Amino acid sequence: MRLAELSTRSGVSTATIKYYLREGLLHPGRRVTATQAEYDEGHLRRLRLVRALIQVGRIPVNSAREVLAALQDEGLDPNRRLGTAVWALPHGPAPDEADPATETARQTADELMDRLGWRYGGPSGETPTVPAYGMLITAIAALSRLGYPCATADLEPYARAMERIAATDLDLVERYGTPDEQVEAAVALTVLYEPVLLSLRRLAEAEESRRRFDGR
Amino acid sequence: MRLAELSTRSGVSTATIKYYLREGLLHPGRRVTATQAEYDEGHLRRLRLVRALIQVGRIPVNSAREVLAALQDEGLDPNRRLGTAVWALPHGPAPDEADPATETARQTADELMDRLGWRYGGPSGETPTVPAYGMLITAIAALSRLGYPCATADLEPYARAMERIAATDLDLVERYGTPDEQVEAAVALTVLYEPVLLSLRRLAEAEESRRRFDGR
Repeated sequence: MRLAELSTRSGVSTATIKYYLREGLLHPGRRVTATQAEYDEGHLRRLRLVRALIQVGRIPVNSAREVLAALQDEGLDPNRRLGTAVWALPHGPAPDEADPATETARQTADELMDRLGWRYGGPSGETPTVPAYGMLITAIAALSRLGYPCATADLEPYARAMERIAATDLDLVERYGTPDEQVEAAVALTVLYEPVLLSLRRLAEAEESRRRFDGR
Repeated sequence: MRLAELSTRSGVSTATIKYYLREGLLHPGRRVTATQAEYDEGHLRRLRLVRALIQVGRIPVNSAREVLAALQDEGLDPNRRLGTAVWALPHGPAPDEADPATETARQTADELMDRLGWRYGGPSGETPTVPAYGMLITAIAALSRLGYPCATADLEPYARAMERIAATDLDLVERYGTPDEQVEAAVALTVLYEPVLLSLRRLAEAEESRRRFDGR
């Protein structure tokens, strides 16, 4: 398809598509004449993902480019490619090592990983530590610094709930046929389901609060 | 305690405390001389909450002021005060009614509330609709617009997991003794646990991906 059709089918303006092409967020089409290129379903899918990252996830263009580069590394097996792409998602400020709360937070997080048998965080050294682990440590340190310290046992129910969520996430991803589509879906669904989860949590809190406190 | 001690104990600079006082995010101390005021544990707790909202939650000062105003409305019963404060948290752009995806998203969300028996969203009209419901509709519409449409059945496992999370949230809140402290904790923990949840989800996805795809 030509640029105009890519624009109509994706709902992205031709100016924005040209910007994504210039920024390397979208791979070039197959050139057919000096001024025209031909685009395919792969371009359409990629455009969908770029919009998920930038418009919904509010991820900076530079980070989006890193995520997309990880998707394209054909040398990696599917698990590694999926991991690398999700790992490249922005994960907030790194833990502040000058803050004493960070050391305690790291111990709590290590203990949690140990209790759960998770291998991508913690001190095991068996597998690389994912950036989300730094995000977890930063969040635990902030809780404690603000007077709401949490213990490993407080975090465990949250982690168990996220185990079930991750299984649901991967079930959705496995509906897609090819490894390429699966990796793209994993990244898009990780980002797009974040507001779904956070809004459902607030709705569930309102319900739970009504059940416990109403009429007291 | 005097301003200097409030600053030391809270870890917030005196300049920032004065800014919060000017902006009405912190209630004035009890004036003891023309130039000095006395602060108490209530100020310390409030300061903790303001930092949770502004520094960790990145909530704009105007929104933070609304949340804090809701906390102080003594006329409301605890359930309503808790609800009002959490409801005042920012919840992203309202659903775009001009977009046809929004109508379908609303039907999906209504059906979900019905299936769950939740009363704070959906068409029942029995209870006020919480702003998080608009956030949910916006998120579902974005999924569908970007080519990842979801059905009520896809969302149900996420909602069930959030029911368990909300019960854990309220257990934490009930550890606090007074209704004032409980309402403050509910708001702070809602905001401060968001990065905990999102990072645990990414870690859990890495685990689940390894279990499913490794060695394939």
